[in-house]
Amino acid sequence: MAEARAWHLKSRPNGLPTPENFELKALPSLKLEDGWIRVRNHWLSVDPYMRGRMNDVKSYVPPFELDAPMEGGALGTVVESRSPDFEEGETVFHMMGWREEAIGPAEQFNNLPKLPVEDHHWLGNLGLTGATAYFGLLRVAEAKAGDIVFVSAAAGAVGSAVVQIAKAKGMEVIGSAAGEEKCAWVKSLGADAAVDYKAEPILKGLMKAAPKGIDVYFDNVGTDHLDAAFAAARNNARFAICGMIGSYNAGTPASFRFIMRVISARIMIKGFLYFDYLSEMDEFHRDMGAWVASGQIKSRETIHDGIEAAPEAFLDLFSGANMGKMLVRL
Amino acid sequence: MAEARAWHLKSRPNGLPTPENFELKALPSLKLEDGWIRVRNHWLSVDPYMRGRMNDVKSYVPPFELDAPMEGGALGTVVESRSPDFEEGETVFHMMGWREEAIGPAEQFNNLPKLPVEDHHWLGNLGLTGATAYFGLLRVAEAKAGDIVFVSAAAGAVGSAVVQIAKAKGMEVIGSAAGEEKCAWVKSLGADAAVDYKAEPILKGLMKAAPKGIDVYFDNVGTDHLDAAFAAARNNARFAICGMIGSYNAGTPASFRFIMRVISARIMIKGFLYFDYLSEMDEFHRDMGAWVASGQIKSRETIHDGIEAAPEAFLDLFSGANMGKMLVRL
Repeated sequence: MAEARAWHLKSRPNGLPTPENFELKALPSLKLEDGWIRVRNHWLSVDPYMRGRMNDVKSYVPPFELDAPMEGGALGTVVESRSPDFEEGETVFHMMGWREEAIGPAEQFNNLPKLPVEDHHWLGNLGLTGATAYFGLLRVAEAKAGDIVFVSAAAGAVGSAVVQIAKAKGMEVIGSAAGEEKCAWVKSLGADAAVDYKAEPILKGLMKAAPKGIDVYFDNVGTDHLDAAFAAARNNARFAICGMIGSYNAGTPASFRFIMRVISARIMIKGFLYFDYLSEMDEFHRDMGAWVASGQIKSRETIHDGIEAAPEAFLDLFSGANMGKMLVRL
Repeated sequence: MAEARAWHLKSRPNGLPTPENFELKALPSLKLEDGWIRVRNHWLSVDPYMRGRMNDVKSYVPPFELDAPMEGGALGTVVESRSPDFEEGETVFHMMGWREEAIGPAEQFNNLPKLPVEDHHWLGNLGLTGATAYFGLLRVAEAKAGDIVFVSAAAGAVGSAVVQIAKAKGMEVIGSAAGEEKCAWVKSLGADAAVDYKAEPILKGLMKAAPKGIDVYFDNVGTDHLDAAFAAARNNARFAICGMIGSYNAGTPASFRFIMRVISARIMIKGFLYFDYLSEMDEFHRDMGAWVASGQIKSRETIHDGIEAAPEAFLDLFSGANMGKMLVRL
């Protein structure tokens, strides 16, 4: 087996990251200790939240260390096992991320539930992505049948899952996306309306698409989308704040013209992280597993090939180049 | 009895209101119908929320009409009664506001609970002001003993009530106010710390006053105070959004550098209006009535005399000239 490599954080990005912030370097050879396994990665997940970990600020998880391999969701095959919990040839999930090979104690790896689905779904609708959509919509925003739901970045990995979960649960859904092609896909997923925020300001588009207002907003964007949601909110609207990709790299602070509607419409806003809901993963796997296996909930992947492509795949998240889930295939 | 007068909204303010937006005019004489009462006003309440009703925008209550008397909390004496529910000489509360005399059906007036307190408290800690503080802190933000609470505009009517309710319920309290005199008063009410936001940026002051962060933010200001609260929030902090006086007259949208902490700290933010809690007024009157009657919860009033002074009193709310509750005495 060739020497395994991993992407290291070479320098902290200032604003939008560049390829120069990352460096692909060989990993040190480690002996397989008792209770450990060795995994050859096949799929890596790149996600917008990783941008936050590149800053040296206190957050819900520690920042990535400089000159160390970066973490993130990955799927691989067990190639060597000294643990009774894992068999060679088995596919596993882990969070050791941006690398060709992962080695460590068995408790750092997860077996996958037995479901008739392709592997990569465990990084998508059946993984962190789908769980974020599911718990954000149903727990944080307490969305229920009949609600009018607005979801931003609806052609993204989390957004496209939100659209479909909302439809599966009997809600009316408006999604925003950049450009006609993405909007057409969002509508094909069942959205009642799709607003192309490249064609017109999101405020104007949302007001047309939701003339009666919105009960729920699932936020992946922040900035102008969040402000439009303030403007459109009906009384007692609930906003689940999942991400603010519009602010991750921005130097200027987000500004809001309609924030005072928080008071008059009694809007509830709550930020969340999917791992606050780990105790409810069984319910998620039951619902989402059935939807994915039956094809009721679909996904689309933007795939980059080869470990070399990982930073490029990550950077594409911020240019709006991806549709659905962004993955790196090794 | 001299012809009664009322303040009418002559024109809608653009930004900060000016005296020219208001006009004092005689009210038409009305005959006292069966079931009606006539009330001579003694105290008028002027409150920041009234600014919102001067705009011609949809909100939780309709905008004030042009060339019509403005509404607002008031206390007066029944001078004539054709209703079995009210006796002449009795003090009543009503929402007909900025006028010398109120006349109308008995259901537009409220009797006052029997408590050994001075009348004006029914426009302050025992009225809308105190109820806003009480329900915002205890219901919306679900503040509990041991929480670290930050309240902005803590020398204002609502803010000073929040400080004292929080202390009565065993919380640690940090208040912000403009200038040394107000800060000294906030501390005299029991606040553990007072931040003078005229002396230093609120972000810097709050970080020093709350080195461990905050669990609850009671927002009367919005803008830089809300942003500082985002920065200081501990995990699962709750923000009750009562008012945003910093934005009521502003032409520029509020901007936020730290809004992304909503996600990492899982902050919950909720706007509210005290009248959503009308069903719980008995509990409020029981708690607050005891505190006010015993002197445990204090108040301070800035009093303007004469109906002519009402617009000036209202405008002073926005210049930070008042301490405690702003009242007009007739």
